[in-house]
Order: sequence, then structure tokens, then C-alpha cells
Amino acid sequence: MSRENFDKLGEECGVFGIYDFDGNDVASTIYYGLFALQHRGQESCGIATADTNGPKRNICTHKGMGLCNEVFTPEILDGLKGDIGVGHVRYSTAGESTRENAQPLVLNYVKGILGVAHNGNLINALELREELEQTGAIFQTTIDSEVIAYHIARERIKVDSVEKAVANAMDKIKGAYSLIVMSPRKLIGARDPYGFKPLCIGKRDNAYILASESCALDTIGAEFVRDVRPGEIVVITKDGIKSNCEKCLPKEQEARCIFEYIYFARPDSRIDGVDVYDSRIQAGRFLAQDSPVEADMVVGVPESGNTAALGYSRESGIPYGKAFVKNAYVGRTFIKPGQSSRESSVQIKLNVIKEAVEGKRIIMIDDSIVRGTTSDRIVSMLRDAGATEVHVRISSPPFLWPCYFGTDIPAREQLIAYNRTIEDIRKIIGADSLGYLKEERLSEMAKGLPICKGCFTGKYPMEPPTRDIRGNYEK
Amino acid sequence: MSRENFDKLGEECGVFGIYDFDGNDVASTIYYGLFALQHRGQESCGIATADTNGPKRNICTHKGMGLCNEVFTPEILDGLKGDIGVGHVRYSTAGESTRENAQPLVLNYVKGILGVAHNGNLINALELREELEQTGAIFQTTIDSEVIAYHIARERIKVDSVEKAVANAMDKIKGAYSLIVMSPRKLIGARDPYGFKPLCIGKRDNAYILASESCALDTIGAEFVRDVRPGEIVVITKDGIKSNCEKCLPKEQEARCIFEYIYFARPDSRIDGVDVYDSRIQAGRFLAQDSPVEADMVVGVPESGNTAALGYSRESGIPYGKAFVKNAYVGRTFIKPGQSSRESSVQIKLNVIKEAVEGKRIIMIDDSIVRGTTSDRIVSMLRDAGATEVHVRISSPPFLWPCYFGTDIPAREQLIAYNRTIEDIRKIIGADSLGYLKEERLSEMAKGLPICKGCFTGKYPMEPPTRDIRGNYEK
Amino acid sequence: MSRENFDKLGEECGVFGIYDFDGNDVASTIYYGLFALQHRGQESCGIATADTNGPKRNICTHKGMGLCNEVFTPEILDGLKGDIGVGHVRYSTAGESTRENAQPLVLNYVKGILGVAHNGNLINALELREELEQTGAIFQTTIDSEVIAYHIARERIKVDSVEKAVANAMDKIKGAYSLIVMSPRKLIGARDPYGFKPLCIGKRDNAYILASESCALDTIGAEFVRDVRPGEIVVITKDGIKSNCEKCLPKEQEARCIFEYIYFARPDSRIDGVDVYDSRIQAGRFLAQDSPVEADMVVGVPESGNTAALGYSRESGIPYGKAFVKNAYVGRTFIKPGQSSRESSVQIKLNVIKEAVEGKRIIMIDDSIVRGTTSDRIVSMLRDAGATEVHVRISSPPFLWPCYFGTDIPAREQLIAYNRTIEDIRKIIGADSLGYLKEERLSEMAKGLPICKGCFTGKYPMEPPTRDIRGNYEK
Amino acid sequence: MSRENFDKLGEECGVFGIYDFDGNDVASTIYYGLFALQHRGQESCGIATADTNGPKRNICTHKGMGLCNEVFTPEILDGLKGDIGVGHVRYSTAGESTRENAQPLVLNYVKGILGVAHNGNLINALELREELEQTGAIFQTTIDSEVIAYHIARERIKVDSVEKAVANAMDKIKGAYSLIVMSPRKLIGARDPYGFKPLCIGKRDNAYILASESCALDTIGAEFVRDVRPGEIVVITKDGIKSNCEKCLPKEQEARCIFEYIYFARPDSRIDGVDVYDSRIQAGRFLAQDSPVEADMVVGVPESGNTAALGYSRESGIPYGKAFVKNAYVGRTFIKPGQSSRESSVQIKLNVIKEAVEGKRIIMIDDSIVRGTTSDRIVSMLRDAGATEVHVRISSPPFLWPCYFGTDIPAREQLIAYNRTIEDIRKIIGADSLGYLKEERLSEMAKGLPICKGCFTGKYPMEPPTRDIRGNYEK
Repeated sequence: MSRENFDKLGEECGVFGIYDFDGNDVASTIYYGLFALQHRGQESCGIATADTNGPKRNICTHKGMGLCNEVFTPEILDGLKGDIGVGHVRYSTAGESTRENAQPLVLNYVKGILGVAHNGNLINALELREELEQTGAIFQTTIDSEVIAYHIARERIKVDSVEKAVANAMDKIKGAYSLIVMSPRKLIGARDPYGFKPLCIGKRDNAYILASESCALDTIGAEFVRDVRPGEIVVITKDGIKSNCEKCLPKEQEARCIFEYIYFARPDSRIDGVDVYDSRIQAGRFLAQDSPVEADMVVGVPESGNTAALGYSRESGIPYGKAFVKNAYVGRTFIKPGQSSRESSVQIKLNVIKEAVEGKRIIMIDDSIVRGTTSDRIVSMLRDAGATEVHVRISSPPFLWPCYFGTDIPAREQLIAYNRTIEDIRKIIGADSLGYLKEERLSEMAKGLPICKGCFTGKYPMEPPTRDIRGNYEK
Repeated sequence: MSRENFDKLGEECGVFGIYDFDGNDVASTIYYGLFALQHRGQESCGIATADTNGPKRNICTHKGMGLCNEVFTPEILDGLKGDIGVGHVRYSTAGESTRENAQPLVLNYVKGILGVAHNGNLINALELREELEQTGAIFQTTIDSEVIAYHIARERIKVDSVEKAVANAMDKIKGAYSLIVMSPRKLIGARDPYGFKPLCIGKRDNAYILASESCALDTIGAEFVRDVRPGEIVVITKDGIKSNCEKCLPKEQEARCIFEYIYFARPDSRIDGVDVYDSRIQAGRFLAQDSPVEADMVVGVPESGNTAALGYSRESGIPYGKAFVKNAYVGRTFIKPGQSSRESSVQIKLNVIKEAVEGKRIIMIDDSIVRGTTSDRIVSMLRDAGATEVHVRISSPPFLWPCYFGTDIPAREQLIAYNRTIEDIRKIIGADSLGYLKEERLSEMAKGLPICKGCFTGKYPMEPPTRDIRGNYEK
Repeated sequence: MSRENFDKLGEECGVFGIYDFDGNDVASTIYYGLFALQHRGQESCGIATADTNGPKRNICTHKGMGLCNEVFTPEILDGLKGDIGVGHVRYSTAGESTRENAQPLVLNYVKGILGVAHNGNLINALELREELEQTGAIFQTTIDSEVIAYHIARERIKVDSVEKAVANAMDKIKGAYSLIVMSPRKLIGARDPYGFKPLCIGKRDNAYILASESCALDTIGAEFVRDVRPGEIVVITKDGIKSNCEKCLPKEQEARCIFEYIYFARPDSRIDGVDVYDSRIQAGRFLAQDSPVEADMVVGVPESGNTAALGYSRESGIPYGKAFVKNAYVGRTFIKPGQSSRESSVQIKLNVIKEAVEGKRIIMIDDSIVRGTTSDRIVSMLRDAGATEVHVRISSPPFLWPCYFGTDIPAREQLIAYNRTIEDIRKIIGADSLGYLKEERLSEMAKGLPICKGCFTGKYPMEPPTRDIRGNYEK
Repeated sequence: MSRENFDKLGEECGVFGIYDFDGNDVASTIYYGLFALQHRGQESCGIATADTNGPKRNICTHKGMGLCNEVFTPEILDGLKGDIGVGHVRYSTAGESTRENAQPLVLNYVKGILGVAHNGNLINALELREELEQTGAIFQTTIDSEVIAYHIARERIKVDSVEKAVANAMDKIKGAYSLIVMSPRKLIGARDPYGFKPLCIGKRDNAYILASESCALDTIGAEFVRDVRPGEIVVITKDGIKSNCEKCLPKEQEARCIFEYIYFARPDSRIDGVDVYDSRIQAGRFLAQDSPVEADMVVGVPESGNTAALGYSRESGIPYGKAFVKNAYVGRTFIKPGQSSRESSVQIKLNVIKEAVEGKRIIMIDDSIVRGTTSDRIVSMLRDAGATEVHVRISSPPFLWPCYFGTDIPAREQLIAYNRTIEDIRKIIGADSLGYLKEERLSEMAKGLPICKGCFTGKYPMEPPTRDIRGNYEK
């Protein structure tokens, strides 16, 4: 199913920054970059740009609720002048979504003006807010970027460059973050020491680019240079690119979010040397090895299940097929007027190709089951269309624990796997058999990269917070 | 490539009608039906409803430019009261698109009020307009529905029912049409005698439905009853459904548009007894038989090339794969600001998964080549990603002739196949080899149904018009 | 009170046409002209333009719901090319307002294309519609322009020019109309033989203009040439302006709508040789003569009561004053959320200047009382502010009868004057005294021009229709 | 001319707060209040509300660009729950207008959450910003409210109530401010010690209200209690209203902005015991005494010149008249497409009633001349309409100096009075004579209240800033 969907995990954000040494306006390139990262967030988006030869207190910015397509017009992009800039797309969760929280955050501070965009979740944001408030800070948003910005601003008083201030701020902030900070003179990228969230470096002609995923580089015709290392700070100035790895941890302590590979990232992206496509094919192969079953056809639940289905097919030799048509016009704003029980959300978005499944034993691959409500419905649709057996395989282990680092997992009580056996779940969703990816396969899937598996195991790379990390700041 | 795309044929419309004998409001069901037919037209849409027990001169209507999602809100749908209704989605061609031309057309005539929606193109519309104007008619739109409506209105004076007026009007209008006419008492469906455009009948509880494609029935949870026959008029009143086949031709004279199977219709639809999915699988198989080549992987150009690619893979035994990621957020309103040559339209919409194609010999399936500009670009992208060979197979024959029946084919001079050999085309698009579906395969693909192949052969089921059918009515 | 108000009569429309012999684009001038006529209609507006040297079937048009300011943008106006054009503003009555009914109506007919705009109301529209339907006509709107257009189209077959067709059509249509018809070659103005509604001719450089009121000429810097005579047809072609007075009646049979002078027209307009300002001053003087009272200050209910108040003051010698502040931001779209009784509609729109009225005996002039609900409220507000006496004077006689010619008067039962004495009304509105303009003063007010006083006397210049003129065509 | 106009001074803001002890939702009352204050600002508006019994970190807020009518819908107001709230309307100056700068500012600080709205201009904002930045503050807007909010937040750490923090903050901030601060428990109003900007207290049933002008109290049906004193802090809690006058100055040091009386405030408001209407009448009388001239009629330039014109008429005995019709539909968003010289801005907005002025000697009263461009045009229009003489009288002295306290006066070089004699100006605007209000009349006009006359005299109640107060913070 597509990302805007029901019963799927929410991710949080995508970031994109660029510094064009030839002095070309960068706003439209940022727009295309954000467009390629749109799958990482559809709630709001924004762009901030500056002229590296202009005044130090000048940044142009435009933000709004909605897709890039809806928020930006050629006129608006044309008004965003400058050869350096940063952009952001933000994920939508019902209710907490406000324009105030759109990024990049643009702020005046002691040394001029900054644009700040980030992806991830701090686990000590509430403590830091309280600390800051005790010394007179005021907060106008509920996003972590504001907490990060305050720390940069305060450190900047003590040190002689914004990159040092970022480094010092990184000693205070804890959690997951891939961060882009721009001043009218510098573009800075930083990734938390665990490397939860991706961030990579690209180059096009005389422009350097920072982006959440490499697919954004492809879209704008830039070449991939390398990933920013976990804990690394890269600083792009007119003198070129510099790296600072003081905050990097020993490699084995790194903890990438495995869900980037399973579901969040686009399959054409490559993160930390591992192709997302490849890891999904691999997950499908593992499922075929560990949960084999006789069947006539392997199908994926579109779009995210398709790649793993291909892997399962290749490993098992069972033909790959296409069982579903997804309505391409279900957008962010799909309305559901006076919907009778007959017109269920799933049916509106997905239809089974009867001819393709009739009389067949089907293996259906999906990337995860959260609450289970959708899986139940899809299995029924396959049966109604004449499938004789429906075997469900999930390309991730069962969710059992909260995520503190930016993935929007519902409360445990709502997770179908909570307090249930796999057999229980199988019965609920009405499948003939059910297999999950084994937890031990996850590291292999990521080609041995150190990963965070907290949502499956409850074991986190750092001490989880003892109180609700959103606290009472959220409305 | 998806339908909203560059270098693709335009289709024209989708229609949906419903009469609920239990008296329930039908507007939201029409909305869902149109939503499932949205691929047939994204320019404008509209719904007209009436109360079968209300006054004879009362129809509620709402029309607008854009997708169903954009034109309708729950409040608007709620205001469209009534147990009988008709809806329409219209295809967008640049420039000629105006709100005046949105359908359904709602009109007062001698016996009350009618809603008229149709899909297709009349070839004698201009003559009929002139004839009507000679007797004092005025035209407020440039759509054929208005010509059809006038004929129904004029015939209605002579005969004692609207269905007879529709039958008489069918003697005058020539060309392709699938038509839904509603009065506040009756829902009438008619299909031209050649059956160019599809129209089917469904049923849900005590409601009868007419729809362009069966996928709309699935979406609303209705069962498929049967297709309307070419030339048939069906009349749904409170007394049930009646059929009139006086206008039907001998079966062998029928001439369905083969492009419904190749590209227009959704793969989960079934038209005149032939599954669209099946015919596309079949087209892929024929290509494998007729244009075999050694390779490592078969891929489809998403979305429409995927099914034929599956067929090719199955026939050839060469593994099916996924080479492209399509950006799901390229909508109708995608803006292209100050686009440099690096940010080509194709690249923004489509990216290659390098890992999947690197070092491989690729067979790439697409459903058609119109101007060739896109194919050229996609072949290059595959090569840039490391494909060692790119063999292009097209699941239709080369376009060479105009269509007079509703498919929006560019002028001959713009068609890549015009005055060129296949080898010429191969060179232009840069493929290692190129194969088209053989014209003689088309009938097989449609399981022997009589079809129109005019755009490939220049031979049409009826005499084509001798002058521009759009005439000087279009702005 | 201003026109967008409660408890006021509705008028119907304003028209504006222009032919620029120098070939300049006219759309923006039409826009300014409509803007000056906006007080005549705020529901919808539209502009149609053509190039007098272009094809005969080409007219550009744009229409929409709302004020000129809202419907037109510089881009839209820029797209409306051509040196001849017609525009229209339409009055809003709740419920029947739809975009379909916006004018000008643009239509293809036997000799090309026409734009039609009119102001007024036909009394035989329903009969004519039925007649037309009997011969196969279809109607897509509920506006009289469509009936007029059909007659022109039908007559045009018999005669050799559109102006003759207009003349013939005038033999069929009965009622009030000021009409502008444009073809891509000609601009035609016509006024019904009674002259109910105004229409005048202006000139600017080498452009001729037709407009509902002379204030539109002032706004665009054109000079006033003369009024179109009741019954006259003027035809503007590249050869100049021609007049046809065959349909004119003897002067004494003419019957101008007196409400143009009392309330509809702008005070800076001059209609048929009589200044609107002057006639309102005169009405105030008559009130002072016929209903004198001792008082300290004369005030008008803004805006329309102010001019008559000035007249009363001059005649009586009692000082003129300003008692009210009207909120300039009460627009067409003013929302009234959860309004408590304290926040009445009147209070939101109007406030009394306490200092100005405290301790004073006030004569308050308004132009009419329809239902009486507002007058009641305003009198109370004056008393609350400390006025010791409130004497109400109305610059028109009491409404007692329906209008069939375009003025939107509520049903008789809702009229405060129906079946009530003036003393009854005085009590209801809580005034210390109440005086209406005497009916016999109306002709003097119009400087002896023959006028229609039907709404006061029930005596109409032509036989009123025996059935509801809106019939069952209105939703 | 009305406020949305050309060649007029800009004002800055209006504020409105309410605490309803009965627990009723206050958002719609705030909406009506802002609507009555709309003349003080048309750029943006906003409302923030809270529930006095709810959590301390909960405030609902909605802000947007445009008029109240455009920004708020019944649904939005319905979503703004709570019995305490604050609203704001903001003035538009081209370019600097952004949604980020809309008020009220809502912020989290050490003790919970606050909403802050203010009217006026600080003269030491830049210094304070720099000071704050030196201690790590970040600024997300360019409005003074953010500076004020920081000071309250920092002081709140040292003292035990928000009202004490406001008092301490007032020791730091210098300039003009009428301030409303709300927490979910308290509504606080404060006025700078000079009293530049108005603020008054009202009461309706069991609700207390704070508002910029008394006309807002009238609109919502509240009674006027009293003005907040210059320097006073009023605190409304569930225990009632308390006052703190520690910051008040000796009365003679107060310095109200005289332009509130001349032009900004609505004539139905009463500020610090002086009726605005009365002071304008008085200004007209002074003009008649000090600059008498023989003439036939006194007219005001609508709307703001009308009241002074009435005063002039009463003092001189020369009849008051109405010379102009102002187009009521010139709104904030009036577009000016391809405007030829004939369609000047003035002519579009204003038309002369020829009949009223023809052959007459006219005294025309306006409230001020800024650049002189409009006056020039209006005098010509009167002459074109046949006025034999045009005598201009201005109800304020000539502008010569900048305002540092919130009035948007153009640069000196653009002021018509700069470096020119009155005779020079008279020639430029083409009047037969010209008279300004004498500076010494201003205090009388304000009934002896101490006033600020800085823009006329260059003498300010406090030391003006030595550098540009907007500094480099403005984009």
C-alpha cells in the first residue's frame, strides 16, 4: 500500500540542502529534490534560500500545508532568490499538524540568520525545553528543530563558528536526527552518532547537495558522492567541503533504523552502501527460505510489498504475478462521504484482478502488519476473487515495542502482535498461513550494518526516556 | 507511464449512472464510481441527481474542473439529493478545456429536464450542428452531448417516450458513443452500434448501475450483470430494466476500440467478456513469440507496461523484474519551474533502480510509442544505470493514422512511426532491438471480438469524415 | 443601508459593452466599467470579448460567482483578447444563484457566435420557453437571456442581419430589458419600449460604449453621449453608430422604473436626463414639505438615505448631521458565527455616534421600508444613544404590490405596509412620527418623465402575467 | 478617503481580549470585536483562545493573511474553544507582510503558555533583540511582540506572577504599546506610560473585555467601563479585575497619538474621555475660524473628511453637501489591470456628483495630505465637474517629521510639506486656497489631553532612536 495509507507506519521527514558555487538560484532544484523525497512526508513542506554574497540577515522562506505541488508555484519559487538553500517535507499525523510546525525553521540569532531542517526525533527534547525555559526561552512550535536551534544559538556565543556551535549542540541533544543548517554563508549537514536517519552528499557541476536519500540526487541529475557518516558534521562553504568526525562512535555502536530499508526509503535509494531495493529482494528471499509454502503465484501488496514479492518469487521459483490494481488518484485529501459498508476504504484504493488470481494458491507479501485491519480485508478480497489459498508473508518481524526515534508506531495495545501468537494473528487476518521475517535476518538484510531493532525487541541503542517524550507540549 | 503523462494517447471520458429503487441518495455512490473511472479523464467531472418521486423539472447538479477529489466535498455531495443520477469524468487536452464543457449536460426540454453524459466522438457532429442551427438552435458548448441532446429533444416531440427519442436520435448521430441519459424518472444507457466504447450494467441491492468499466462496479461493491450490447438501448425505470436492440448490427460489423484493451481501461476491468488484464498478458506473450531476444530480465514501463511485461516473461521464461520507481506525487498540476536540462520531465517522474539493472540485458515493455521522446529518454536512463543491452517491445502496432472516434492522437507528422521503418525508430530511441505487436495479433488479443484498428491500418469501420470534425467550433 | 443589505430590495443586473475602433483590447476597460456598476449586482459577473478582424466563431469568455475583484485577475483579463466586448454583473438572490446563470451568455448560432447580456425581467419568458421547447429547443439556464438568444437565432434565419433579428425578437419578448448583443463584428444595444431599465451611450477616443449607468462612463474617463431611447435599437459597427426607433412607443406610454431614482442607481448617474442625485435631494425636500416636524438634526441611514436627508435639511433648515458609522468591511461573504442576540446583524453593520445624537430630536431618512425589521432596530439604537425623539421619513411611498419587471420584492404578506395603516407601521418601528413620500410626488421627482409605479399602486404599464413568471424552471 | 487608500497614513493594529466568567466560548465574540476594529488593520488577523479550567499548556490559535471575513469560517471559530481569548488585526505595508508576523503570538515559556497581542511600536526593539541574542535567544518573527514576550518570559523566572513579569518587562521596553497578554488563567492589559495607543475596558454580562476602541464594545453589545490608564496594568482573573498603576507617569507627561482623533479611530469611538466624532467636528470648526473663505458648499473627502466638513459647515454657516460617490467595492485585493491613464486609481474609487458641484464654490475638507498625489487629482475632478472655486482645508497640520511610535509615514523627501510653503503646496494641488489646522489647535481638539505632536513638530515625548528602528531585521 502506498504511504498515505491506513494501517501503515508514519515516518517523519525529508531534508534537502544545496550550495551552488556558480551562484545560480537554487529554489527550483530544491523543489525537485523535495518532490523526490515527498514519500517521506506529505503534511507540509518548505524552502528557505539565501544569497551567499548578500546581507547576513537575509533569508527568503516559504512554507505551507500540503504537497510540494500544492505549496509552491513558479511565482513563489521565482521569489526565493539565492544560491544556497534548504528544504523540508514533513509527515502528517492527524491533529498535531499545523503550519507553525512546518520546516525549515528560520531564525535570527546572535550572529545573523539560520535555516534549520531536520529529520528524526530527540528523546530528551522535553528536558531540554524545560531547561531552556528556565533561562528565559520561549517556544513557538512543538518541533525539535526549535530545541536544536536554541542550542546552536547559545553555543554560538561561546565558540567562533556555527559548525562548532552545531558540534557542541550535538553533545546536548540525544536521539535521532539528520540535520541541515544553513546560514547565508554555509551549508552544514550533521547526522546523529547512531546514524538512525540517512543523509547523503551529492554533486552537480559546481554545486554540493545534501539529501535524505540518494533518489533525490538522481532526480536532479546529480551524482552521489558519499553518505554522511553517523556522527559526522560536514560543512560546505565557498572554500569547499570539510568534515568533522569528533562525534562519531565506534562503528559497532551505530544503529540505523532498519525500517528505512524495509519500508520508508524509496527502492531506488542507496543508504550507507546498501541498496534499498536489494535489501527488500533479500527480505523476500529470506521469507521464501524460512517460510516456504507451495503455491501458484507470489504477489505483493502495492507498492511497498512488490519488491519483496519479487525476491520471494526468485528464491522459491513460484511465478511472480500482479493481483491488485491500486487507484492512483487516492490522494492526501481523499474525501469519504457518507460511505456505506460496501464502499470500504480498502476497496476504494485497491481492487483485485479476478482473472489473475482465480483458482490460484496465492502467496501475498506485505512489508508489515500494524493493526491488522487492512490485511484482513485484502485477504478477503483475494478469496472473493477466487483465490483457493492465501498465504501471507511479512517482510519484517512483528511490531511489539514503541519507537522513540521518529517512527510513528501506535500504542502497544493497538498492535496486532501484542500479546498474540502468530497463529492468533493468522486467524484474525484469515490467512491459510502466515510468516514473518525472522529478527535474526534483519542484520543480513542490511548487509551487516549495525541497526536499531528496538520496535521488534524492545532493546534500544540508548536508554529510552522514562516519560512521554511529547510531554504536554503537544496540543 | 501513467496516464497523466507526456507522450501518451488521450482518452476521453468515463460515465456512471445509478437508479436506486429503495430511494437512497445516490450522489456519494456516483462519486466513488467516478473515482474508480478517474483514469479515463482528469480534466473535469460532474454529477447530476434527481428524485424519482419529485417534480419533473428538478435536477441537482455540480460540475467543476479537476479531479473528483478536488471538485466534490462532503457538503456538495450532501446537497445533491435524489435516488437517480449520472456522473462523468472528462479527459484534459490543453487549451480547449473549459468548465462550460464539463458534463453531465443538464437541460430543460419539451418534456421536462434531462441529464446527458457520454463517452466517445461523433464524426458528423459538425454537420448536425449546422443543420440544427439552420432551424434556430443555439449552442453553448463544444461538446457532442449538446448535439445529442438536441436530437433527443426534437425527436421527443414526435414520439411518446424519451427512450424512443434516444433511438431515433441514434439514427442521426454517427460515430463512437456510450451514452447515459437520465430524466427524473428514467435512467437510459445506449452504446453506438459499433461498440467503440464500453458500457456495462451492474446491480447492488435494489439499485441498477451503468458504468464505463466494470472496475467501477467492484469499487462500489456491486455485482457485474452484463455489458450493454453495441447498438443496445437499456431503460431502467421503477418497473425494472428493459432492452431495445433494434439498432444493433450483425456482430461481425462491430468495431470495439482495441486501445481500451491495450491501454485505456484499467487491468481489473472486463469488457465484452474479455479481461483487460488477460489481453495484456496475451499481448506480452505474443511479443515474446514474435520478437524473441535473449536477455536477463523483462521489465515494464510503469504502470501500463507492467502487465504485458509479465506476459512476455511467462512466455519467454526470462525473469520478470522491476527497473523503475515512479514518483507517486506527479499529479495533474505538477509545475515545472525553471527546469534545467538536467531535471527532465522523465527523470522527475521515473527513476531507474541501478542495482536491479546493472550489468543486465533488459527487455523493456511499453504499451505504445507516440512521438518517441519519452522512449528515447528511458532507454538512456537504463543504459546510464548499467544495462548492457536494452531491447524495447511495444504491446501495440505502430500508430500511423488518425482516430476519428475519440482517441487523441497527434497529427501524423508528429508520430514517430510515420514515414519511418522500425529500424529507423530503433535508432532514434537508441534501443538494441525493437519489436511491435503484429497487427494480426490484435484480434487474438481481444479473443476474437470484432475490433477497430483504424489508427494502425487507416481502415475504419465507417467512412471517415472528409473535413476536420472539430471544425471552427473549437476555440 | 448599503445594497448588500438585509431588508432591502434586490435589483438585477448591470451591463457594459464597448467597441474600440482603434483595435485596442477592451477587457480591462470592461472590468473597470463593471466595477463601477457592481452596486447593481454582486452575485456573479462575466466578460466576453472578440476580435472584430478575427474569425466569426471566436469569442473569449470568463464568468464566475462573486465580485469583479474576485472573479477576474490580471492574467484572466489578459487572456480575454479583442477590441469588442460585453460584460455583466448579476444580483444575488439566495438559492437560485448558480454559475450556469452567469452572463454574458455566449452561444453559437446559424451565423456565427453571439454574446448576450441583459438587465430586466421578461413577463412572458415561460410561455416563450414552452413554445420553443415545442419545436425542439433545449434550455441550459434559467435566465431570460437564453430565451432572447433563441428568438434572435430563429429570426436571424429569416432576415439578413442580426440587428433585424433583434428587432423581430423584440416583437415577441414582453417586459423589462436593457440588452447588449455582440457578435465579433457588431455591438448592439436595445431597450424595451417602456424603458424600464436604463442604458446609455458613451464615447472615449475612438471607442463607443454602452452602459447601464453613466457613472460607468465617468469611471473609465468616457464622455456621456446620450441615453438609448426606450424601444430604440443602436447598432455599432466599424462604420459607426446607427439607430432604429421602429419599436419606440409614444413618449407618454413609457414607464421607467422609479426605483432607479429612489435607490438602485448610483447618485452620480444621470438617467434619461434626470440626475439621480437631484431626484433624491428633491424627494427629501418633498418630505420636508409634506411631513414637516420640529427637530434638532436630520440624518440619513447610510448610504442610500444620506442624499434625501440632505434635501430634507435644506428644505427645512434643520441641520444635517451624521448619526451612524457603517462598517466598511461587511462584504458579500460576511459570516455570522454562533451569533448571540447581543450581536445583531444591524449592530454589526451599523453603530450610532452617541455624541452626535445625545439629547437631540432626530429626523431619520431612509429610502424604503420593506419588512420593517431593520427600521425597528435602528430606531432603538438611536434612542439607546440618547435621542429624545426619532422621526422617520421614507423617500418612497409604501410598497404594496409585486413587481414583475425585475425588482425583487418579497411576497405581499411580508411587506410591512400590507394591510396596515401608517400609524400601525409607526408603532411597529417605534418612531415618534412616520412619513412616506406621497405617490403624487414621484413624477415630480423624475422631472415629469413617465414612470412605472406598479409596486405602490398595483397599476402596471402592461397586463401583468396571470401565473408565476418564474414558473417551474427555477430550482 | 477610506483607509484602504492611497496616499494615506498607515496605522498598525487593533487588539481585543475577553474573559467570560460564565465559561461561554468566546471565539465568535472576538471575531465580531475584530470585525469592528478591522479599520485598524487589514493585512492579517488572528485569534487565540483557552479554557480557564483546562491544562496550563493549552491554547488554540488560528491566524491568516486577510480580513476577518476571509480568515475565519464558522468551522474554524467553532474549533477555537475556551472562555478566555485574545484577537488581533494587523495593518498591511507592502513587502514586509508575512504570515509569520501575524498575531497573537502564542508561545510556551517557563510557566506554561501565553498569547500576546499588541498595537504600537517599540523604539528600542533592536537593542533589546541584540541583547537577547547575546544570551542565546532566537527570533522567528520581526514583530515587537516577540521582544516583549521574551522579556516577560525572562522576568517570570524572577517573580511569582505573569503580571509582575509584565510590569518588569515594561521597565525595559520603550515606545508605544497597548498590550494584551493572556494565559489560560488570566487576561492582562497594559498601556505604555505615555498612552500613545488606546485601550479600553468593557463588560457584558459576566465577561470582561479589553479593546483598542470603544466601537468594538458597541458592536458586541457590551458596556464601556473605562479606559485603561496610560502606564496601567489591569489583570482579569476569576477573582475579578485588579489594577496596577506603578508605571503611570504624571498626567502631563502623557502623550497620546493625536492621529487617533484625526484619522485612525472610528468616529463612534471615545478615547480617554474624548469623543472622536466631537474632536473632528471641532477640527472643522477651528478650520472655519482660522481659515475662513466665502463659498457655496462644504464637502468632505469620504469617508474620513466628512465629519470635519460638518464642523466647518456648522461654524461657517455654509451649507454642507455631498460631492463624491465612493465605490464601496474597492477592497484590499482590488486589481489594476493594464490601466490606461484614463482609468486612474482615484477615478476608480471616487466619482464626483456633477449636479451637486456645478457652478459652485466648494470648500473641500480632507484629514491630511501626505504626498499630495491624490489631492491634486480630486481638485481636478471637482473643477472638471464644474466647480468654480475649490478651497482645500486640512484637519491636521502639515506632516514634516517621522513617527517612531507606529504610524507609517513615508520618508521626509516624499512628504509634500517638506521644504515647501503652504503656497507651494496650494499650487501643486491646484486649489484656490489652502488651509491647514494650526498646530496650537491640536490640544484643544483633544480637549486638553496631553498629546504627541512629533510628526508635526519633530519634538517627541521621549528621545527618538538614533538609528533605524527597523534595522536589518526586516527582510
